[in-house]
Amino acid sequence: MEPDKNSSSIGIFDSGFGGLTVMRAIRELMPHENIIYFGDTARLPYGSKSADTILRYSLENAALLAKQGIKVLVIACNTSCSAALDQLRKVSNIPVIGITEQGVEETARCLPQGKIGILGTRATITSGIYQQQIHSRCANLEISAISCPLFVPLVEEGYVEHPLSIFVVQEYLRPLKNKEINGVLLGCTHYPLLQAAIQQELGPDVLLINPAIACAEKTRQILAENNLLNPSTSLPHYQFFVSDDPEKFRLMGKTFLNYPIEHVLQFPH
Amino acid sequence: MEPDKNSSSIGIFDSGFGGLTVMRAIRELMPHENIIYFGDTARLPYGSKSADTILRYSLENAALLAKQGIKVLVIACNTSCSAALDQLRKVSNIPVIGITEQGVEETARCLPQGKIGILGTRATITSGIYQQQIHSRCANLEISAISCPLFVPLVEEGYVEHPLSIFVVQEYLRPLKNKEINGVLLGCTHYPLLQAAIQQELGPDVLLINPAIACAEKTRQILAENNLLNPSTSLPHYQFFVSDDPEKFRLMGKTFLNYPIEHVLQFPH
Repeated sequence: MEPDKNSSSIGIFDSGFGGLTVMRAIRELMPHENIIYFGDTARLPYGSKSADTILRYSLENAALLAKQGIKVLVIACNTSCSAALDQLRKVSNIPVIGITEQGVEETARCLPQGKIGILGTRATITSGIYQQQIHSRCANLEISAISCPLFVPLVEEGYVEHPLSIFVVQEYLRPLKNKEINGVLLGCTHYPLLQAAIQQELGPDVLLINPAIACAEKTRQILAENNLLNPSTSLPHYQFFVSDDPEKFRLMGKTFLNYPIEHVLQFPH
Repeated sequence: MEPDKNSSSIGIFDSGFGGLTVMRAIRELMPHENIIYFGDTARLPYGSKSADTILRYSLENAALLAKQGIKVLVIACNTSCSAALDQLRKVSNIPVIGITEQGVEETARCLPQGKIGILGTRATITSGIYQQQIHSRCANLEISAISCPLFVPLVEEGYVEHPLSIFVVQEYLRPLKNKEINGVLLGCTHYPLLQAAIQQELGPDVLLINPAIACAEKTRQILAENNLLNPSTSLPHYQFFVSDDPEKFRLMGKTFLNYPIEHVLQFPH
């Protein structure tokens, strides 16, 4: 155990802003850990692009974070997980945590049987990653998978509590109506921002599973197992890198992170 | 005049699919011209990104087309025009036509006074390019500019005649209601696909200006002035390049082009 390894950062990447909901969960659970976040805002969204392209982008993002000497890599983008998690584990010499796996774990823990709706981008749903992995863990769980391609632009355009969002949520969740589902997995890191509208539409008895929470817990567990937790009790250091306009990220990011963002650096690929 | 110059292609680029509405207008006006189209689908949309990033992407796209020996370059992306048209003219040794300029020309021709609504992506509207250029040509025209950031994802997700589109169109056009506007400029190449919903919302007396038509006419004029029209009467050769999944482009592109697309090649940047 090298002493400086403990103070090095948790690295997180996402296609843009959404992964900040994962950083938020990690920050709340481990308030003294240093964190480096990379958002590939010049090439977002990933959800509508091909697996090959997403793999290429994800490898580039991970390489950029690896250069900063991170101690663990969190892939906070479901689309990247479906296209690149295995490959990233092969090429990384640090632990790699994927949000999708944690979504599956959390589902198996909270909702091993009954009926679940899985919401995600077109790429995530088409990849079938959540459906396959959840089915192999919970054979008795009935799954309805729905791609919700307009949720990301809605959130990114700030329509979080707008009639438009309510209308779009109603449209996408229509197939779940009258199915007596027990829970819904928020299979995209933007979706927690629409949580209130989704809960409203489905009613209070439906459990919403946010993989970001499980992802933060897994990160703490992995760090503890590897003696990599930061023993410091001082204020942590957060660094934000993006591939497009830093100012837009700074302004919009605070909604996702629920915390002010001070400096953002641009790192064009 | 080199003879092979006449048979060389018109080059068109856009961030993705939208520019195919410009290719459609060019094809209908000049059915024997060869055309090379590049859609930067791995990095779309441009509309939400910064001017610096859009400039960089646009220069790369133009360089890619220049290598194919095109005789004229058409920038079929309003966002690229606002960020890169001047620079592209400086570095190109062929004529460069920008869709935005043609939208301005067409507005000055059809609607020199009265009241106009300008619809565009956030980047186009924020840049102020249409507002400034139209104001300097038509000082008595009252302008209301509205950014419609959800129109592109709606069209790209195929919600063209869906209740969702109607609802979003109503939301965005609300500021134009009771303003007795005379016309609306479709300041993004995706918007002609929502033309029916927009016309329905505004009523039959409001003129919709589609800059793609003017862009095609300008292209013919420039080719004629430079003796570059193709005298051939045989079937033209169309080439399609994209930076992401060719198959998705092929399938979705025909809606925009109103013509089948046979082969698409991937050209990652």
